[in-house]
Amino acid sequence: MPSYRAPLRDMRFQLEEVLGIESLRNLPGFADAGGDLVAAVLGESAKIAEEVLLPLNQSGDREGCRFADGVVTTPAGFRAAFRTFAEGGWIGLSGDPDYGAQGLPYVLATAVSEMMISANMAFSTYPGLIAGAIEAISRHGSAAQKRTYLPRLFKGEWGGTMNLTEPHCGTDLGLLRTRAEPRADGSYAITGTKIFISAGEHDLTDNIIHLVLARIAGAPAGTRGISLFIVPKYLVNGDGTLGARNGVACGSIEHKMGLRASATCVMNYEDATGFLIGEANRGMRAMFTMMNAARIGVGLQGLALSEIAYQNAAAYARERRQGRALTGPAFPDQPADPIIVHPDVRRMLMTMRAFTEGGRALLLRTALAIDLAHKDADAEARRDAEDYAALLTPVVKATLTDLGFESVNLGLQCFGGAGYIRETGMEQFVRDARITQIYEGTSGIQALDLVGRKLPAHTGRYLRQFFHPLDRFLQDEMANPALKEFVSPLARAFARLQQVTAWIGEEGLKDPEQAGAAAADYLRLFGLVALGHAWAGMAKVAAERLASGTAEAPFYTAKLATARFFMAKMLPDTAALQARITAGAAPVMALAAEAF
Amino acid sequence: MPSYRAPLRDMRFQLEEVLGIESLRNLPGFADAGGDLVAAVLGESAKIAEEVLLPLNQSGDREGCRFADGVVTTPAGFRAAFRTFAEGGWIGLSGDPDYGAQGLPYVLATAVSEMMISANMAFSTYPGLIAGAIEAISRHGSAAQKRTYLPRLFKGEWGGTMNLTEPHCGTDLGLLRTRAEPRADGSYAITGTKIFISAGEHDLTDNIIHLVLARIAGAPAGTRGISLFIVPKYLVNGDGTLGARNGVACGSIEHKMGLRASATCVMNYEDATGFLIGEANRGMRAMFTMMNAARIGVGLQGLALSEIAYQNAAAYARERRQGRALTGPAFPDQPADPIIVHPDVRRMLMTMRAFTEGGRALLLRTALAIDLAHKDADAEARRDAEDYAALLTPVVKATLTDLGFESVNLGLQCFGGAGYIRETGMEQFVRDARITQIYEGTSGIQALDLVGRKLPAHTGRYLRQFFHPLDRFLQDEMANPALKEFVSPLARAFARLQQVTAWIGEEGLKDPEQAGAAAADYLRLFGLVALGHAWAGMAKVAAERLASGTAEAPFYTAKLATARFFMAKMLPDTAALQARITAGAAPVMALAAEAF
Repeated sequence: MPSYRAPLRDMRFQLEEVLGIESLRNLPGFADAGGDLVAAVLGESAKIAEEVLLPLNQSGDREGCRFADGVVTTPAGFRAAFRTFAEGGWIGLSGDPDYGAQGLPYVLATAVSEMMISANMAFSTYPGLIAGAIEAISRHGSAAQKRTYLPRLFKGEWGGTMNLTEPHCGTDLGLLRTRAEPRADGSYAITGTKIFISAGEHDLTDNIIHLVLARIAGAPAGTRGISLFIVPKYLVNGDGTLGARNGVACGSIEHKMGLRASATCVMNYEDATGFLIGEANRGMRAMFTMMNAARIGVGLQGLALSEIAYQNAAAYARERRQGRALTGPAFPDQPADPIIVHPDVRRMLMTMRAFTEGGRALLLRTALAIDLAHKDADAEARRDAEDYAALLTPVVKATLTDLGFESVNLGLQCFGGAGYIRETGMEQFVRDARITQIYEGTSGIQALDLVGRKLPAHTGRYLRQFFHPLDRFLQDEMANPALKEFVSPLARAFARLQQVTAWIGEEGLKDPEQAGAAAADYLRLFGLVALGHAWAGMAKVAAERLASGTAEAPFYTAKLATARFFMAKMLPDTAALQARITAGAAPVMALAAEAF
Repeated sequence: MPSYRAPLRDMRFQLEEVLGIESLRNLPGFADAGGDLVAAVLGESAKIAEEVLLPLNQSGDREGCRFADGVVTTPAGFRAAFRTFAEGGWIGLSGDPDYGAQGLPYVLATAVSEMMISANMAFSTYPGLIAGAIEAISRHGSAAQKRTYLPRLFKGEWGGTMNLTEPHCGTDLGLLRTRAEPRADGSYAITGTKIFISAGEHDLTDNIIHLVLARIAGAPAGTRGISLFIVPKYLVNGDGTLGARNGVACGSIEHKMGLRASATCVMNYEDATGFLIGEANRGMRAMFTMMNAARIGVGLQGLALSEIAYQNAAAYARERRQGRALTGPAFPDQPADPIIVHPDVRRMLMTMRAFTEGGRALLLRTALAIDLAHKDADAEARRDAEDYAALLTPVVKATLTDLGFESVNLGLQCFGGAGYIRETGMEQFVRDARITQIYEGTSGIQALDLVGRKLPAHTGRYLRQFFHPLDRFLQDEMANPALKEFVSPLARAFARLQQVTAWIGEEGLKDPEQAGAAAADYLRLFGLVALGHAWAGMAKVAAERLASGTAEAPFYTAKLATARFFMAKMLPDTAALQARITAGAAPVMALAAEAF
């Protein structure tokens, strides 16, 4: 069975030493968010992850969810774990204290989520979906809706879902057909079928609050005629007690490659009572609020699975003995050396490590921007932070899931044949990770979002929030001898990013397919530069700590070594990506559709 | 359920137009191997693949193999399909007619195998393992052993296995412990435990002929004390009838990520009667004969799964409607365009296609070399062909499985969320493909074989069989205006390969870890250049056909378009690989083992 130890030292390095979240205490509501609280929250959540959730991960995968007569039963142990989790106040950690949540910074809640996902990604989808519903109701709900739903969601008494996809439409929501007929009492009768609804039905909560996209009778076609509705599984009486069962039922659950303990449901709505949330026909906007947070959350899944896969691959590589070091036996008294002596095993472990720690830095930096976007006293700083988060959301989502999938596969590979056997648990990480590249918008959709929306938005305003600070960093540190080995390759990669950004801007104007064909490679190049920036930033802190003397020299030395690996072995991919992008759309689009 | 149509047109293009296998008719035993026979064999095997094997692929995965009381039951339908397959004479198609086989060229048998694997990889492992046993006995067995075993193996009355791995040793076979005690009658008593034995026990054949590596009492330690034994499940009487049950039994089967209809067995040998095959203590050499053929066979699995994944992804992309073409609606009368209009979907399909067709060309070229190595009248030509096959075996194995896994994942990705659901079958291709990067030597081991054995062998003699023809091709075609667009990028990539080959030769001499750390990147670079050479060769034939006029212009035009895609979008990776390789071993090896 895989083991897991929450990477607390690295999380505190990132949160405190790199991001300096201590400064968040100046923001409204975060006065208590100092080092002690951070340590306490991280330490407690590590315990839950390691002791409560991890032991259910493999058994949950084996057992899967069961469906019979409209009822979904989660795997053994999930109910008790969910109660522990909910009663600990871990749901919606960064939510509004007025409704019973903890009001902690989102960046801290993100670190907590990472642990929960590493330990049991399938389990984490249930509170994750609740957090999505909380986000939508908090941002777009009426005061009465907030009062009715938020406290029970925060307590984990009620579950939540997002209902977007229908059999004939996933990416292209403009095609959606679920209907909402206005009733005399102000509610709507919702009718339609939704598919791929995570946590659509389960036995963990007394009620489930579905957030459903539907089209009000007579609304415009396309995405401009879509509204968002609250559809509770059980209607809620005026006094907050549960009333009649609503006209929504789970028709079946999917048999999936992985994430088997997370129920993926077909949801049938038949004259179900729904309550409009936000304005009519503005449902897509409301849904995007949820979706952006969800996209960062999916990026986090890629990262979190990479972390646990890395830990287990490293442990196995230290134990498993096969062959001898190329430089001569490392353990001559043993029949063979541990496989960690082999350069190719090292290459795999270093790749995983460089991705995981770099990805964590990038993701937490983005999460911090979301805190600042909500809370900073300065309006311009809020806007800048929001721009940064908007720009980085697709980059984080696609890069961390695509590289995360590569990383968990490297973890499996370190195990050799044993990795292919269910027992070791490594193949589960691969199966679980595979969905992250797909749901909440495939990697290809993220790339289009970056190239088609985020780059051109406000004539490049978002982009400046990434380019300018990076440029400043390079200017500031160019002459710093301690950082030259990191700054030089990063500057070269950044130059490539600037060149292809200009190329796409120019060529894409003439022919949108140039931008479309370049999008995936462009996002990857962007992601690598963003990871490079994160690594150079970490290297700066580590070099400073080492220069000023520290009892933790091995930690900072390892940081520098991993930063060197990233620059030497991962960042050079930017050269190939630039060549691919500037080779243009013609080779991609040349074949007629019938020729495939 | 996935569909499959054998790619007969491309196979005939490769075999007849590119490789010119008609010329094989000059070789002993191949006089009949002309166009008519090729067409007949390919056509018949396509039917078996499409009609008999494909329908059992998904059901076989769902059902898996069952184990109870030492007995393994294959999924429903496998027994009948195996009888059809065996009675059709498809086992050991290229085997010796003296023992009842068809004696066809190996290159043709390889094309046939591709279809079987595409349709049902798990099923194909049973005849595949029989072919391995046939190979070992044909090459190393005594005349009596050949008479006893080969005819029944060719008929599929008996199964075969390869027993290498033990719980504590896979890659490092020098550690193996299975013992062989000589008996007075010349046989040996074999005792030990083998794991990960494909087809170790099943219900498809009356007997199973295990080929087992073991150490004769008193033999030297390490790989020089290993011998190969034949250990039949049922002993064979002098008259060929089955005798007593031997002391070998299946202890359990593994629960695996994929390939679930192929039984992966723990095999317990307890005083089992074994017969030495070949010389004592030379078992590793004999096993390598089998392993090289098996490695090419595994490369073929990567390719074959990519083919079926491609076919289904392309079909889905033509049908599924989401969004609109970036250049404006392609089907304005429909609510949305098929997703094949989207450049990012095209990118995925073209990548799969360029890999699959290029991989097929590379693999069949290697298979042809194996025919020539066995049959060419000229001794020097035989040696050259053998050198080529020896060099390319690790390249084919690792490149076609690593890129094959990427390709099937792209196939899944084209399906979006539906790809993650078992029903569509795309995720099965991913689970099945994942083992190919591991068994018969991981990709990392292939890379070490290439860099550590094949490059330095006979002071670079093997390498010349790849470098010289490629160099000649580039010289010959440099001035050919029809091929300039293919020759120029290939020449640049080849220059990179030459540079890093020299770099590894020099640096690896000083420090073997330089070679070890570069190995995986080097193999990938080598593989891309080899695919590039294959594509340029195909482009040459296609350009000539088009120039001379042909009724099949769309086929050849598509070839050229796909060749262009490969050169523009896949070959540029060589630049990044060169940078990574020459960044050296230091960044890979810097961390202490305890720091992971």
